[in-house]
Amino acid sequence: MAKLDETAAGVYIISVTPFTDSGALDLDSTDRMVDFYMEQGVTGFTLLGMMGEAPKLTLAESRSFVKRVLARLNGKVPVVVGASSPGFASMAELTKAVMDDGAAGVMIAPPGTLKTDDQIVTYYENASEAIGAGTPFVVQDFPQSTNVHMAPSVIARIVKSLPSCVMLKHEDWPGLAKLSALRAMKDMRRISILVGNGGLFLPEEMERGADGAMTGFAYPEMMVGVVQAYQAGKPQRARDIFDAYLPLARYEQQPGPGLAIRKYVLQKRGVIASAALRKPGPKLSAVDIAEVETMIARQTRRLQEIG
Amino acid sequence: MAKLDETAAGVYIISVTPFTDSGALDLDSTDRMVDFYMEQGVTGFTLLGMMGEAPKLTLAESRSFVKRVLARLNGKVPVVVGASSPGFASMAELTKAVMDDGAAGVMIAPPGTLKTDDQIVTYYENASEAIGAGTPFVVQDFPQSTNVHMAPSVIARIVKSLPSCVMLKHEDWPGLAKLSALRAMKDMRRISILVGNGGLFLPEEMERGADGAMTGFAYPEMMVGVVQAYQAGKPQRARDIFDAYLPLARYEQQPGPGLAIRKYVLQKRGVIASAALRKPGPKLSAVDIAEVETMIARQTRRLQEIG
Amino acid sequence: MAKLDETAAGVYIISVTPFTDSGALDLDSTDRMVDFYMEQGVTGFTLLGMMGEAPKLTLAESRSFVKRVLARLNGKVPVVVGASSPGFASMAELTKAVMDDGAAGVMIAPPGTLKTDDQIVTYYENASEAIGAGTPFVVQDFPQSTNVHMAPSVIARIVKSLPSCVMLKHEDWPGLAKLSALRAMKDMRRISILVGNGGLFLPEEMERGADGAMTGFAYPEMMVGVVQAYQAGKPQRARDIFDAYLPLARYEQQPGPGLAIRKYVLQKRGVIASAALRKPGPKLSAVDIAEVETMIARQTRRLQEIG
Amino acid sequence: MAKLDETAAGVYIISVTPFTDSGALDLDSTDRMVDFYMEQGVTGFTLLGMMGEAPKLTLAESRSFVKRVLARLNGKVPVVVGASSPGFASMAELTKAVMDDGAAGVMIAPPGTLKTDDQIVTYYENASEAIGAGTPFVVQDFPQSTNVHMAPSVIARIVKSLPSCVMLKHEDWPGLAKLSALRAMKDMRRISILVGNGGLFLPEEMERGADGAMTGFAYPEMMVGVVQAYQAGKPQRARDIFDAYLPLARYEQQPGPGLAIRKYVLQKRGVIASAALRKPGPKLSAVDIAEVETMIARQTRRLQEIG
Repeated sequence: MAKLDETAAGVYIISVTPFTDSGALDLDSTDRMVDFYMEQGVTGFTLLGMMGEAPKLTLAESRSFVKRVLARLNGKVPVVVGASSPGFASMAELTKAVMDDGAAGVMIAPPGTLKTDDQIVTYYENASEAIGAGTPFVVQDFPQSTNVHMAPSVIARIVKSLPSCVMLKHEDWPGLAKLSALRAMKDMRRISILVGNGGLFLPEEMERGADGAMTGFAYPEMMVGVVQAYQAGKPQRARDIFDAYLPLARYEQQPGPGLAIRKYVLQKRGVIASAALRKPGPKLSAVDIAEVETMIARQTRRLQEIG
Repeated sequence: MAKLDETAAGVYIISVTPFTDSGALDLDSTDRMVDFYMEQGVTGFTLLGMMGEAPKLTLAESRSFVKRVLARLNGKVPVVVGASSPGFASMAELTKAVMDDGAAGVMIAPPGTLKTDDQIVTYYENASEAIGAGTPFVVQDFPQSTNVHMAPSVIARIVKSLPSCVMLKHEDWPGLAKLSALRAMKDMRRISILVGNGGLFLPEEMERGADGAMTGFAYPEMMVGVVQAYQAGKPQRARDIFDAYLPLARYEQQPGPGLAIRKYVLQKRGVIASAALRKPGPKLSAVDIAEVETMIARQTRRLQEIG
Repeated sequence: MAKLDETAAGVYIISVTPFTDSGALDLDSTDRMVDFYMEQGVTGFTLLGMMGEAPKLTLAESRSFVKRVLARLNGKVPVVVGASSPGFASMAELTKAVMDDGAAGVMIAPPGTLKTDDQIVTYYENASEAIGAGTPFVVQDFPQSTNVHMAPSVIARIVKSLPSCVMLKHEDWPGLAKLSALRAMKDMRRISILVGNGGLFLPEEMERGADGAMTGFAYPEMMVGVVQAYQAGKPQRARDIFDAYLPLARYEQQPGPGLAIRKYVLQKRGVIASAALRKPGPKLSAVDIAEVETMIARQTRRLQEIG
Repeated sequence: MAKLDETAAGVYIISVTPFTDSGALDLDSTDRMVDFYMEQGVTGFTLLGMMGEAPKLTLAESRSFVKRVLARLNGKVPVVVGASSPGFASMAELTKAVMDDGAAGVMIAPPGTLKTDDQIVTYYENASEAIGAGTPFVVQDFPQSTNVHMAPSVIARIVKSLPSCVMLKHEDWPGLAKLSALRAMKDMRRISILVGNGGLFLPEEMERGADGAMTGFAYPEMMVGVVQAYQAGKPQRARDIFDAYLPLARYEQQPGPGLAIRKYVLQKRGVIASAALRKPGPKLSAVDIAEVETMIARQTRRLQEIG
């Protein structure tokens, strides 16, 4: 499989990890899920992200899940695997395993202990050394979750220092000014920038130079539609699509119940057999479900109106 | 002026604090702003909130601004004043001053040093003692900003312990389950619950028992329209209004530039003379402004469509 | 091997994990270290704690290290293994492995996402379910590192809810009032309380009802001596010993370089072959080392004076 | 009064703020306290620091307290006033007032919202603009409390950018390597560095280039003695003094009850009439007091031994 590089674009779906109702890995649903995402037009996959319940898997389960996705995809699109870890030994162990199995690269979020600019740069240098200078990696910039704040100049230093840094997952909030600043940097190698945050700022981010999205909203057709409309030079069309999905996207982006909502919708759409999360994880109430159903009905109507 | 009590409902607008371009308090704009908010149908005011740049004012400026608003309103609707302070002496000093001038109550956010349930309850008991047991107050539950996390049982304990606690500003995120839990508590005195977060979850919050909103989106007609539609038993109408404003409301809710966007719109609408923030505060870029204008144009069109 | 229970007392040494200069696990040094700790009079071991560089080991390395210690000890004293993990599957996997190998119990620190009293109690209930109700465990209360703050009443709720909770590692700072409050709780099952923080408050903690220490200062004879003096009813003798070691204990307790200092001293004392830490970890400067040597010389002199 | 400059050295005592038992400012005790500190050999005062309960005072009380100290000192030694504030308007207001009254400079801690290196530098540039380029100021580097982490290079940038930055209050923990790094910077203007943290690392800090201490341990003779011994080239004598006071200094440095312990000792020594803290603040228990008394007795004995 080809390795990830700076030209990556489109929609890298942040995949959920399907479980059965009893909490076991559901590999049958995994196949169906891979097919579903491909049918929606995604251009890549990201496995074992935060919304993939990665920390709740054992190493053996993580490897088994990645293998299954890679087998089903059979090289059609690149797969990025989340390899963030409190220690470099575990990070290197998982990275080696998944790269050997055919992953295209790994994604690394910084640990919350990093405080100063220099500490952040040094951390990525150490991480790159641990996974090997030949392994392409994605910097995950998600301060709301990691509590690590990277100035644009810090990202530029990482990109300059490490040729294997080929992509930024841009998930700061607010991050629009940061994205503009990064794209305005004359002396920074152009890397791929895909955006997160459930796609809630996707139109503005595309206008400011993002190459696409890396997020997991249960309607991937939203991200695919918006990105393609921008690629086709149709910003108003992009916003029509975006606005139609926005009420539900906003609802799914709630930090606590968000993943339960996403899995509920994916189950409802026939993608996964069970909406179960592993503990600790919330359960949706009847009111939550009624709200989701109301929004889906309205969304369907609105999509028909815009054609 | 009547004091705040548990029956408060509708829209308490989180007022901005107008400055001139050079950073001085702009009391002329203050009058115009009061009139504007009243014309939009608000049922109360909240001054010196976080989005009112309260920490950037001296005590003398704070008092002068509150006096001006109270004079202009002349008792038409109640005014809540933010009195959060690192110390009880300053909290008591400001509270006494504004209550003497005619405020209806004060709002108090907890300091970030509070960690356990007991510490939070004790803090509000001390605060109530400091401002006087007869002064109605609002508990501001805004963990994203304060880093203090109040379980529903903690809020219930505060309400039980302190009769002068008459309102909750509900601004947890996610907070929908918390709101449902609070309204399901059989043995908790029913207090007013107004919601924040820029109104981004207003439909769901109204459905779960909120009495209205306390937030400051630059189109107060959104909050007023949604709350009135729910009061009239028209949830689909409420969502039509909400969805039309959502793209801009989402954009204005960005933590960093949000207030600059809000002031830009209020200036554009002729409410305040200058969009200036006091330092430290962001300035909008040309791209930011273009995005806002795009969204306002689309919003206007959509509002015409829904009638 | 007998399982850990509420009667545990004395000094459970927080063991370092020895590496070679190149960063490999050093199992020969492990044997020597076990013998050394036993000679100093420790009554138990704690492996894979934060100061054991646990997150820097792979699962296979962790198991190999625990096995080696258990084999060398051959049942002489109980061994507690740190099993904190971001997910219950990994926690259960490691716990089963080490308990099968002969560990006496596991220690669990709470994840930083827990905010309210109820969330903390629920977390330990879920953890106990994951590791099995028959597996004794230690609650690690170390808010400076975990950012989770447990009121005494929360600890009491955990103890009441879970019979397999047999010990508290008390490491709050300040924690003296908390320790007194716990021991004054009439209706709480008496569990073992061992204290951490490098032993920096050991005299006061013993006076307030601690059963001993669980910490890793490079001179375990300090903790052993202080605990035994208190057990013998000789508090002034305990403080004489404590005061003699305090300058170095204070120096070793520095959050960043602390472990490097500890390993330097253990290497100097002939316990481990290399003072190396795995990355990320600090290296001592010549000035650091000179300071340590100065303090050791003064400490030796002072110990001779007190006899 | 002369303004603060880069040559400042010795012991700037972090003064407590005396209250009566009922919580009123105690200006009589203030005079006595000023005299006491002077008799111990301090070379400067710092008022309204965190341990001066500054946030619990109204602006009027703050000014009144500063005036009283300045009047009593009558220019004998320089006075630094804590002017940290969430807003520049209040910071400027207090600074102007105290400088007009005769203070030598102000101390400014950064707000917890600052995350990146650039944000920290910009903040101090704005602060300096607010208080006036001619007003000497101290950068307070105290990340355990502020949650702002300044790399040595950031401090160097502030010193370079702002000639009125004449002193660093060094209170990082661990901070020894940082202090060495700062003194090794060839191209950084030499400013005064005084150290905090209750003096718990004073010997090592003096050896690494500190000019003295700025902290408030209830026995200022400890800091004065240690600093003078280093100035006289007698490091072993310095450590003898330090070690004698260390058990109590360690105890007083506890984050929660620390100030109550300090005030208890100052009351016991006849310096202030009441040990009362304003709410929220802890009260000492009988056990706390017994421990303090034990340590004072041992400390007295030890001081006699070392002569």
